[in-house]
Amino acid sequence: MAKGASLSGFPEWLPEERVVEQQAIDTLRRIFELNGFLGIETRAVEQGSSLLKKGETSKEIYLLSRLQEVGQENDTPVEDRLGLHFDLTVPLSRYVVEHSGDVAFPFKRWQIQKVWRGERPQEGRFREFIQADIDVVGNGDLPSHYEVELPLVMVSALEALRAFGLPKATVHANNRKLSEGFYRGLGLDDIEGVLREIDKLDKIGADEVSKLLISECGATEAQAKACLELAELSASTGEELEREFRALCAKHGIEESSDAYALAAEGLATLAMIVDEAARIRPGSVVADLKIARGLDYYTGSVYETFLDGAASLGSICSGGRYDNLATQGKKKYPGVGLSIGLSRLVSYMLHTAGAHANRQSPAAVLVAVWNEEERGEANRIAEALRSRGIATDVAPTAAKLGKQIKYADKLGIPYVWFPGREGAGDEVKNIITGDQEAADRTSWQPDTVYSRQTVEYGD
Amino acid sequence: MAKGASLSGFPEWLPEERVVEQQAIDTLRRIFELNGFLGIETRAVEQGSSLLKKGETSKEIYLLSRLQEVGQENDTPVEDRLGLHFDLTVPLSRYVVEHSGDVAFPFKRWQIQKVWRGERPQEGRFREFIQADIDVVGNGDLPSHYEVELPLVMVSALEALRAFGLPKATVHANNRKLSEGFYRGLGLDDIEGVLREIDKLDKIGADEVSKLLISECGATEAQAKACLELAELSASTGEELEREFRALCAKHGIEESSDAYALAAEGLATLAMIVDEAARIRPGSVVADLKIARGLDYYTGSVYETFLDGAASLGSICSGGRYDNLATQGKKKYPGVGLSIGLSRLVSYMLHTAGAHANRQSPAAVLVAVWNEEERGEANRIAEALRSRGIATDVAPTAAKLGKQIKYADKLGIPYVWFPGREGAGDEVKNIITGDQEAADRTSWQPDTVYSRQTVEYGD
Repeated sequence: MAKGASLSGFPEWLPEERVVEQQAIDTLRRIFELNGFLGIETRAVEQGSSLLKKGETSKEIYLLSRLQEVGQENDTPVEDRLGLHFDLTVPLSRYVVEHSGDVAFPFKRWQIQKVWRGERPQEGRFREFIQADIDVVGNGDLPSHYEVELPLVMVSALEALRAFGLPKATVHANNRKLSEGFYRGLGLDDIEGVLREIDKLDKIGADEVSKLLISECGATEAQAKACLELAELSASTGEELEREFRALCAKHGIEESSDAYALAAEGLATLAMIVDEAARIRPGSVVADLKIARGLDYYTGSVYETFLDGAASLGSICSGGRYDNLATQGKKKYPGVGLSIGLSRLVSYMLHTAGAHANRQSPAAVLVAVWNEEERGEANRIAEALRSRGIATDVAPTAAKLGKQIKYADKLGIPYVWFPGREGAGDEVKNIITGDQEAADRTSWQPDTVYSRQTVEYGD
Repeated sequence: MAKGASLSGFPEWLPEERVVEQQAIDTLRRIFELNGFLGIETRAVEQGSSLLKKGETSKEIYLLSRLQEVGQENDTPVEDRLGLHFDLTVPLSRYVVEHSGDVAFPFKRWQIQKVWRGERPQEGRFREFIQADIDVVGNGDLPSHYEVELPLVMVSALEALRAFGLPKATVHANNRKLSEGFYRGLGLDDIEGVLREIDKLDKIGADEVSKLLISECGATEAQAKACLELAELSASTGEELEREFRALCAKHGIEESSDAYALAAEGLATLAMIVDEAARIRPGSVVADLKIARGLDYYTGSVYETFLDGAASLGSICSGGRYDNLATQGKKKYPGVGLSIGLSRLVSYMLHTAGAHANRQSPAAVLVAVWNEEERGEANRIAEALRSRGIATDVAPTAAKLGKQIKYADKLGIPYVWFPGREGAGDEVKNIITGDQEAADRTSWQPDTVYSRQTVEYGD
């Protein structure tokens, strides 16, 4: 939890910690734009009816009421009240439908915004946090190659965040069609039920899941065993995936001519394409992992979860999938595929586990000293001259003793202190880290590159 | 109001409009950091008790309730409930007190975030909007030169926003001590009452204000007239301000030896310093305007409002002042001075009045064409090569006819279409705006500067 989070679940950073978060956001935005995604920002507020549509998380909504309505909130049904969005997918669906005449399809968008979850205060989870999402939404249809490309964009974004101390990320991909085809081939019908139980594997283990499959989803012991065998399957090439999947189907009597197999084969082809293309562009970044189920039931094709090496306790830090039916307008569908990074948790990891830190608190590279208040105007003029050339500059708060002014610069991590020339002498500038002092011209002096900008480092 | 704002008061922009807002935010951040301000972000949520502290706007708060608490909201007193912040000053006060041991004072911070006001839906005002604030907060005391510098930082920020079509901005400054000293010198005691009525001048005119001063604040006709004369006073140099103010005091029998005059003189000195220093650095950017009163009663020194040439209907677009008593911790005070830009209204002006627009919808400079789906991998490789050199690149969504692919680029405003070489021929790239086509090497080609980045222009 963030230091100084005075309200449980609402993280807040110190200025030097915020530099890490801000630069992480800048980095994600840069990668998303480099890949041709358009940035949007949606309002924080949605109608209750939109928020309630999407099963699982609906329990965790914050509803709003105007102070002047206190006491009469319940005159309005929840569906007609306003609530804070709990993710960026529901707002995207609404946005796309509302603006379908104004955006170009397929619509590739990035969005980095806060979301809110009305969790119980004692759970110790974030109730306000930043999500960073990319999605591609088609008008009517959406080519499956986006199911290959989107996780790869996220891989390159997470790769860029390694500069902030994140370990290597691996995307684990599966495909709902593959799972569904296999389960149907076994003779199981409650597909959503089976997926829901399989999703619990990491939490409760194979034995418990097996029991639940039998008690909750009407599976026989043999069917439950087969489901668990599928979940154990993983592969890093399409060829390996296909070979193992076929063997498993053969073992359980699922014929390749069956409708069930045909459905599975669709998912298999997409999943094979994902791992093979990923292996070409970034070897080792994406694996097929057939236990990935994802809780939410709106996914219809690929599903993804992402884990960091050596940070299993964080769980999946970037998840998503393909959804064909989330956004609709009459008969028209807007199928999409997208992934979402839970950024606040990552920033917390960067700060508290990886030791990420800003090289300095202040963006200023220079503090101009002030000999006395009468000469503050001259100090301001020097600051203006430096700023006009893009050099971030602060001016000493008071005309205190020089030692005190230098201490102020030191506390903020400002590397240079500028001494205005007096009585005909020229200006001088001192690097208070190296101790070097030199004559300097306010119209041409440049800070050393290493001291010119606020940057983020990690480690101790 | 924003096009497509499907919920009244909650503006939402199209992707190409969002580019304008995003670059305006980037510009403000750049100027704030250039001036040595530290960026922070506070949680969107504050305790009801904090939100209710600050008089005037307290009517307009959105309170939160967890969905699971619906029906029991009123078991909790409003003070103990959570609400969305309605400005960035209340959160700053809390933040400074909470982290007083961790930040360097004077604490100079910028903050650009959404705020919410629970206005009546029918009022047609923004209920969610972005504010951009700078403040300096001292520990115990705060030198008055910050009352000079902060409006000048905002002037340079607003100057930078002229690239987005904003007209020239002028800060109108006054000082509460000057007004209070003058009113007390006249024999008036209800200082807050007089300020509140004077603040209505632009809305209801001098005659009505005069009546209110008499009926509400116990003023005689002569006192009311004197208050209005003070409000008429404006000056662009300290010398002019001082001369006119002295003449007015003499006229109304306020002696320079009185306590009331001494109080006014303090405010006069700061205000004179503001206009004179502003005139040196940016002539014409700041004027003394003694009718500026500001509704909020927590200001204790300088107060500012900012108007755009020829956009009087917007009202003040950047306001603030000095507050000595907002943040306290036991006996300790954290006096501050700050200004706040209502950014969403400015963006609305840029878009709908000034004609600000992005040069293109997509951040991508290049769209790589796809001859057929089998060759998509090669197109991806080209895109990767360009991105690795910082060139934002998209890949055609389908292997449609070339004309259709070019049309997709055109719709997104992507200036270049890249044709992968086939059968031993090299790659070519076409600028679809100029029609120029040339051989191109994916490892060295650069777009023309004018087409390399998403930029904002204004006018028709």
